[in-house]
Amino acid sequence: MRIGILTGGGDCPGLNAVIRSVVRTATTQYGSSVIGFRDGWRGLLEDRTTPLDVPAVDGLLTRGGTTLGSARVAPEKLHAGLGDMTAVLAEHGVDVLVPIGGEGTLTAAHLLSEAGVPVVGIPKTIDNDIDCTDLTFGFDTAVSIATEMIDRLHTTAESHQRVLLVEVMGRHAGWIALHAGLAAGAHLTLVPEEPFDVAEVAKIVEDRFARGDSHVIGVVAEGASPLPGTMLVRDGGVDEYGHKRFTGVAQQLGEELERRTGKEVRTTVLGHVQRGGTPTSFDRVLATRFGLHATVAAHEGSVGRMVALRGTEIELVPLADAVARLKTVTPSRLAETLAFTG
Amino acid sequence: MRIGILTGGGDCPGLNAVIRSVVRTATTQYGSSVIGFRDGWRGLLEDRTTPLDVPAVDGLLTRGGTTLGSARVAPEKLHAGLGDMTAVLAEHGVDVLVPIGGEGTLTAAHLLSEAGVPVVGIPKTIDNDIDCTDLTFGFDTAVSIATEMIDRLHTTAESHQRVLLVEVMGRHAGWIALHAGLAAGAHLTLVPEEPFDVAEVAKIVEDRFARGDSHVIGVVAEGASPLPGTMLVRDGGVDEYGHKRFTGVAQQLGEELERRTGKEVRTTVLGHVQRGGTPTSFDRVLATRFGLHATVAAHEGSVGRMVALRGTEIELVPLADAVARLKTVTPSRLAETLAFTG
Amino acid sequence: MRIGILTGGGDCPGLNAVIRSVVRTATTQYGSSVIGFRDGWRGLLEDRTTPLDVPAVDGLLTRGGTTLGSARVAPEKLHAGLGDMTAVLAEHGVDVLVPIGGEGTLTAAHLLSEAGVPVVGIPKTIDNDIDCTDLTFGFDTAVSIATEMIDRLHTTAESHQRVLLVEVMGRHAGWIALHAGLAAGAHLTLVPEEPFDVAEVAKIVEDRFARGDSHVIGVVAEGASPLPGTMLVRDGGVDEYGHKRFTGVAQQLGEELERRTGKEVRTTVLGHVQRGGTPTSFDRVLATRFGLHATVAAHEGSVGRMVALRGTEIELVPLADAVARLKTVTPSRLAETLAFTG
Amino acid sequence: MRIGILTGGGDCPGLNAVIRSVVRTATTQYGSSVIGFRDGWRGLLEDRTTPLDVPAVDGLLTRGGTTLGSARVAPEKLHAGLGDMTAVLAEHGVDVLVPIGGEGTLTAAHLLSEAGVPVVGIPKTIDNDIDCTDLTFGFDTAVSIATEMIDRLHTTAESHQRVLLVEVMGRHAGWIALHAGLAAGAHLTLVPEEPFDVAEVAKIVEDRFARGDSHVIGVVAEGASPLPGTMLVRDGGVDEYGHKRFTGVAQQLGEELERRTGKEVRTTVLGHVQRGGTPTSFDRVLATRFGLHATVAAHEGSVGRMVALRGTEIELVPLADAVARLKTVTPSRLAETLAFTG
Repeated sequence: MRIGILTGGGDCPGLNAVIRSVVRTATTQYGSSVIGFRDGWRGLLEDRTTPLDVPAVDGLLTRGGTTLGSARVAPEKLHAGLGDMTAVLAEHGVDVLVPIGGEGTLTAAHLLSEAGVPVVGIPKTIDNDIDCTDLTFGFDTAVSIATEMIDRLHTTAESHQRVLLVEVMGRHAGWIALHAGLAAGAHLTLVPEEPFDVAEVAKIVEDRFARGDSHVIGVVAEGASPLPGTMLVRDGGVDEYGHKRFTGVAQQLGEELERRTGKEVRTTVLGHVQRGGTPTSFDRVLATRFGLHATVAAHEGSVGRMVALRGTEIELVPLADAVARLKTVTPSRLAETLAFTG
Repeated sequence: MRIGILTGGGDCPGLNAVIRSVVRTATTQYGSSVIGFRDGWRGLLEDRTTPLDVPAVDGLLTRGGTTLGSARVAPEKLHAGLGDMTAVLAEHGVDVLVPIGGEGTLTAAHLLSEAGVPVVGIPKTIDNDIDCTDLTFGFDTAVSIATEMIDRLHTTAESHQRVLLVEVMGRHAGWIALHAGLAAGAHLTLVPEEPFDVAEVAKIVEDRFARGDSHVIGVVAEGASPLPGTMLVRDGGVDEYGHKRFTGVAQQLGEELERRTGKEVRTTVLGHVQRGGTPTSFDRVLATRFGLHATVAAHEGSVGRMVALRGTEIELVPLADAVARLKTVTPSRLAETLAFTG
Repeated sequence: MRIGILTGGGDCPGLNAVIRSVVRTATTQYGSSVIGFRDGWRGLLEDRTTPLDVPAVDGLLTRGGTTLGSARVAPEKLHAGLGDMTAVLAEHGVDVLVPIGGEGTLTAAHLLSEAGVPVVGIPKTIDNDIDCTDLTFGFDTAVSIATEMIDRLHTTAESHQRVLLVEVMGRHAGWIALHAGLAAGAHLTLVPEEPFDVAEVAKIVEDRFARGDSHVIGVVAEGASPLPGTMLVRDGGVDEYGHKRFTGVAQQLGEELERRTGKEVRTTVLGHVQRGGTPTSFDRVLATRFGLHATVAAHEGSVGRMVALRGTEIELVPLADAVARLKTVTPSRLAETLAFTG
Repeated sequence: MRIGILTGGGDCPGLNAVIRSVVRTATTQYGSSVIGFRDGWRGLLEDRTTPLDVPAVDGLLTRGGTTLGSARVAPEKLHAGLGDMTAVLAEHGVDVLVPIGGEGTLTAAHLLSEAGVPVVGIPKTIDNDIDCTDLTFGFDTAVSIATEMIDRLHTTAESHQRVLLVEVMGRHAGWIALHAGLAAGAHLTLVPEEPFDVAEVAKIVEDRFARGDSHVIGVVAEGASPLPGTMLVRDGGVDEYGHKRFTGVAQQLGEELERRTGKEVRTTVLGHVQRGGTPTSFDRVLATRFGLHATVAAHEGSVGRMVALRGTEIELVPLADAVARLKTVTPSRLAETLAFTG
């Protein structure tokens, strides 16, 4: 059998570990071959490939990034290129395609699957917003880095009686903010799922200092936003898909809090450090198991599916279900966390 | 309401985070009070207590160890002391007891529960061998440390064409060895669940060098043992419960492999570094959630139970079920891992 | 003898380790007592103190921040308060004052010393810009964190063919940028000591991509600035001492590079994470030795001095020499580093 | 010009960074070429080489180990092979040889130098026992790892009222023990330079518990030894050079302390994890600067020398001076550290 593999969307620790796992499982356990498409869907559209064997994936387990490269492609290009992609796959004799990516990549995978291409998807998202799987690789690494950084900020905030806001990733789902906030003992956690009331946030800050607390640490998901009308918001333009962007939420909230509370506020935007570098052991294990089970599924003909973590087991779920909706923070999980703030 | 809390058995990163979580949830959300018993069951037997309020748990989220102390008590002492313990609980007006510990502690908790004491157990084990819960806190930290150490050994083994064996914790269950082996790309993983054939291990080593590989890394659970008759084993005496001990498995296997293969073998025993220090973000979140849900259960009268992680949710399971058997590595998980060795 | 101690200026990993060292040395080796002034010079001006004994400094070795607090005080306030400070010292029976801080704090220390107060200064600066000492504590920690972050950015830059700029601390001296750039293999290092030519920077970026390199990582000290006329600079206002500020150099350079090269540029501003958290082992050793030697000097009457690292030894240098000028990156060290770029 | 390079002796973080630095400096700044000899002196004796250019050293900055391999060769073999080595160097047109290694390697380098071969040595030793240089790369990494491990042991020792002994590297010099002990706040530090009195060690342990302290952490250099007659010592055989070995000092001291004090003692032997893995930023900078300056010296004809760190500068010292004696812990540094124990 011949397996095609590609990595789509943003960078994520564990991508290389998945590639290694697919290649080792396919070649060692099944005697199959693997071909990689470069720079995500673009490599499939433009027929740019690289052969992948065991020596080629040596050392990839611990390396961040993706050796195949990745690039974003507009959805309409993918629709238009369906025929081209099918032709390229046929030309290379690819029996099953294994795309690794987030919502966009898996939606494209679903599209190809509907068009008759045998596909097994592997979910990848720093933000943990893909449905039907307990977790995805990369998320634990992102939360670990954010937590380590917030741990460091605690002591400096304490010494100077400051408010420190940390902006973490999470455009549509607040999982990173939620977990890092809980893990690092933040006093405030703002997520996209529940717009915040600036007056209420300012009150929490003032109450803490009034009680004699030395500092306030707030974790703010990049996609968090104020309740309409409670705070002036600078225009962030539109993103590549035409959606309106509200950028720099932590910075803007910080300026507003300084004005309202008179306290010194400092803001740190973690940015890309959350998605680079070696994966945690948790993510390496998950990525390796995803790769292994996707390869087994490909060989057993279980296509049109996505591998998913359910409890301690890796299961297969229909691609259609996985892309039906984003997995956002539930009210009960949010309530659980907020019980630890204030 | 008044909650009593104690930590039993060996040290484990996240214990302090659980204590903090129980105290904060009980006092802030329910207006209840919490009393701690010192040094595990011994504190309950000997009536040694410490009051716990929010200031007392400040800073505990990130600290390893247990601020309550811990000590091992022989099971027969616990049986004999049942009446004393009940009296001490009554004297302090404890409504629900929340013991945090491994198999021994939870068995004792079950005993008290059967005797009519309202109990909510919280599972704790580095080894991940407690049944009915996907994971326990401390395990992720132990695997992380072991993985980081094995990462470091790879380069030194490579430079010197050596076999490096790393002994990790896991007396009855090989979960740490399995996960760290998978996460760090070990070439050999030996667990208690499947006795190893020394001749076969030696062959794997020889085959790797014959193929031109630069080194061999093996992860050995402390409870791994050779198939009877395949290797001379030094007497390790008996442990505190009278069980025969086979200590130093990695060291002894190393000596045997040197003799059989002529290759240089070095052994590292990680020991207590696996159970000390600040917990990973994963373990901090899990410990905090366990503490929170146990406190809620205590207030809702859901006693005789243990909190457990099931997928992404914290659920309650009967204590009786949790202590019925140890959770060891399943044949399918073992096969999955071994697919990556050799 | 009675020693007074205070920590001035910004936060710095190792401050607590110094405090612990002074207290342990003074009490254990000399039977002396130590009193701490809170929030830097403000505590001395306003007579706010805290007693310091061995139990009070337990656990401080590994903790970031300063348990004494710190605050900035305008130089003219210090001049005006000279009499008040001398009176407070006399009232508390302080024989020698040990101020720990950067240029501002040491200048104030020198002022007091000139006025007849026995003073032994301890240099502290993340930026490593204090003269007459090879290094100061906190610097190694800051460089370590910056390096770890840049390590993480390499893989994500590689996968996406990007330019990633990292802004690190260093307002007047580029030591952090220089060391982190060298340690992390950056392709560009911009420091305050040598204004950069934007056209030249753009050319380096273009040349790398033209040669087939996958990405460009640049380290930019916060105090780096463009050659006049080569780049439009947004107004950063003035700082607390009335100096003109050029803030956000990396962000502005990034925008300019995007415009000139057409490449995607991402910017990360590390900010306060560089000065928080537990110190590296190097900084803990240096801080402990500084505290010890300052205390010995105080007891031996070697006042009007600052402790300094010279090779492997801790020596005493006149405070006047230490504050005469800032220690900036020398042309030879800069040339050394630039030999590795491009 | 043509430079030959080899790495001798045990593994050490930073070796690869030196190789990268020599290659980049030689090729980029001088247009010279570099050839590597494999497995230390053995490669020179047996004429096994590998060409080294800039692509060959890509990514080496952060990687532990040595891409050239390393092996120990008996001194008499080197003496006997002097003629062969000279011939091999001539055959490959090597103008200057740059050997990177510890005492053994540098002594061999000196021998070659005396025989007329142009040599520039680069000091390498985890143990920091090479004279005439403030520090060598690898040492900071080893101390960092040991410190991190001891940090972890503190909490577990606290929780169980135990004595924990950590054996670190240092056969003839106690620098790692000294620095790690100081950095991690150990209560006992035993080094090869001063034999310990077991009775005195036992008294320190008992005194701490008697004072109410919760635990004792001791750092023991592998080369530490008891005062003759104070403790029974198991025979450790002889090492490859025929010297008598005393192995397992920490383990044996632990057993003795258990017997004498009745306290539970646990021993951890860190072993090879201290010499593997990515170097700290400090070691990466030092290794890079050593490589750069050695290459400059080679091109300027400054041979028969070794690069050395003196304060903040890299200088050249005669090889003869560097190998005249080992740099052991001085009485004043030892006294400084012991002032913090007990």
